[in-house]
Amino acid sequence: MSTPTKVIFDTDPGVDDAMALYFALAHPAIDVVGITTTFGNVTVEQAATNALYLTAIAGKTIPVTKGVATPWVKPGEAPPAFIHGADGLGNLASRVATSNQLDPRSSAQFIVDMARAHPGEITLVAVGPLGNLSLALKLEPQLPKLLKEVILMAGTVVEPGNVSPVAEANVWNDPHAADHVFTAGWKLTMVGLDVTHRVIVPLAMFKKIADKQKHIATDVLHHAVSFYADFYSGIYPHVAKIHGCFGHDVLAFIYLVNPELFVIESGAIRVATEGIANGQTMMKRKDIFHPQAGWADKPATQVCMQVQAEACNTLLEEVLMSDWLPR
Amino acid sequence: MSTPTKVIFDTDPGVDDAMALYFALAHPAIDVVGITTTFGNVTVEQAATNALYLTAIAGKTIPVTKGVATPWVKPGEAPPAFIHGADGLGNLASRVATSNQLDPRSSAQFIVDMARAHPGEITLVAVGPLGNLSLALKLEPQLPKLLKEVILMAGTVVEPGNVSPVAEANVWNDPHAADHVFTAGWKLTMVGLDVTHRVIVPLAMFKKIADKQKHIATDVLHHAVSFYADFYSGIYPHVAKIHGCFGHDVLAFIYLVNPELFVIESGAIRVATEGIANGQTMMKRKDIFHPQAGWADKPATQVCMQVQAEACNTLLEEVLMSDWLPR
Repeated sequence: MSTPTKVIFDTDPGVDDAMALYFALAHPAIDVVGITTTFGNVTVEQAATNALYLTAIAGKTIPVTKGVATPWVKPGEAPPAFIHGADGLGNLASRVATSNQLDPRSSAQFIVDMARAHPGEITLVAVGPLGNLSLALKLEPQLPKLLKEVILMAGTVVEPGNVSPVAEANVWNDPHAADHVFTAGWKLTMVGLDVTHRVIVPLAMFKKIADKQKHIATDVLHHAVSFYADFYSGIYPHVAKIHGCFGHDVLAFIYLVNPELFVIESGAIRVATEGIANGQTMMKRKDIFHPQAGWADKPATQVCMQVQAEACNTLLEEVLMSDWLPR
Repeated sequence: MSTPTKVIFDTDPGVDDAMALYFALAHPAIDVVGITTTFGNVTVEQAATNALYLTAIAGKTIPVTKGVATPWVKPGEAPPAFIHGADGLGNLASRVATSNQLDPRSSAQFIVDMARAHPGEITLVAVGPLGNLSLALKLEPQLPKLLKEVILMAGTVVEPGNVSPVAEANVWNDPHAADHVFTAGWKLTMVGLDVTHRVIVPLAMFKKIADKQKHIATDVLHHAVSFYADFYSGIYPHVAKIHGCFGHDVLAFIYLVNPELFVIESGAIRVATEGIANGQTMMKRKDIFHPQAGWADKPATQVCMQVQAEACNTLLEEVLMSDWLPR
């Protein structure tokens, strides 16, 4: 078996972040070398607290940093407690005592330090608003060359948005940072709503996993997904039918390990940073001349447009059912 | 046979405008009661000149007005002479003398006058930038109730844009006017690139029509479409294959007479009026709550998302091959 891929996970846990984190920790081809947190689904303080808690109860000690607390330009929004719970994990009744401690560096500095220490080896998987990546680019303009690749759960092209008819939440939460990230020139893949809205994960999967693992980590995940599935089932009849939730963040890791499950289209992505289009990811899908400025010479992003949804669910269950938790 | 529908044609001829105008004049179910011109494919002066010329050589006397010459807010662009010719009709070698005269009213005032004179009877088919409609709405806020319906060749939802990756030319040419029109609350149908890019009309059709009609009107149309088809064939390999052009403006009239050839989706449309999204039509395709302001309580537009392309071409040929020209 080949060496696992070193991954920094930039995240705002968040229920689907927790699902993604546990998938990454459980998958033998992924080595999570750091968790950099940001505001988004929760405040950055809560995000860092949750990252420490989720790793601790899963018996892992991984550096966790605290990152940006607000968007660069637009005013911050209150976290969506109705989606992820006020605590980001579906309002846990209690938490056990744990001893994992925060790494004192900023998320951006941690990303830069790790990229410099392991040039060409680190994959950055980012599933929240993109302020940490934007700041890291400012700290180290060579970052695109120092990282192996960047995979984002962010944006949407054809599928309608989830915070506006055209905008996906992570991008909308910090459109200026997102535009910076999409035009930075790294090897970049966007895993957006075009695919994450295709993958509906049944809550029953997490009950089955919790029943098998009999472990606090998978109990917490089951509780969190239960809250999250209630939210999505309340909005979308087709999700309610199987009482599930969208896969969102975990799809970024599934792309990392099984890119063949996705259909990719390549083209420049720009982000609207004002007005009613705010937070929209726009893609140049045809290589023709346009009089509108702002598109020439922009680097291409690989955009996931289609996904084999059933295979994703099969993989997710298989990985979380494996023996990955300490006994 | 039922009474033909009274139509005001708001237009910037333009090659596909000419095609649309002749389809309308030739179709027994359409009664063109006025032609209101605007800047767009050409200057408004050229648009008015062309509307007078096209009607005159087809033996028709229809009121033609001159409308807005520039966008409301953004600076005007030079007309795209490389698409429609410097004269809007593929650079005609010469023009015969004609005697049709301009109606002295503004296009907006003409629309308002006609709507008041025939309340509930007039269908407005607009295929250029939407400044005349926006100004008419300012002159007569009750206009949405006075008109029967409004059909636009404008915008795009899923299909990439033609002046930016996300913007269609008519909307991009005056985004503020377009947003005004899309939120005004009339019975509104959008015939945009989602369908007009599906209908590729072969130049050979216009040769066949010219050969049969042996008339200056269809000779001029054949000449104009030839220039236009060269432009599109130079950009799009699949259009070059049949040496044709997109149907664009004529699709608005085909929708009027044969709406069953289209698949419609209903939802609010807003227009981006700034930044890199400028001129984009965004559609609210799912009826869920969004934190982004600007979408609540906006009226729905009927948006053409699919079209039976072959049937459109068959109809277009049939109508233009009929005996509609004076002998």
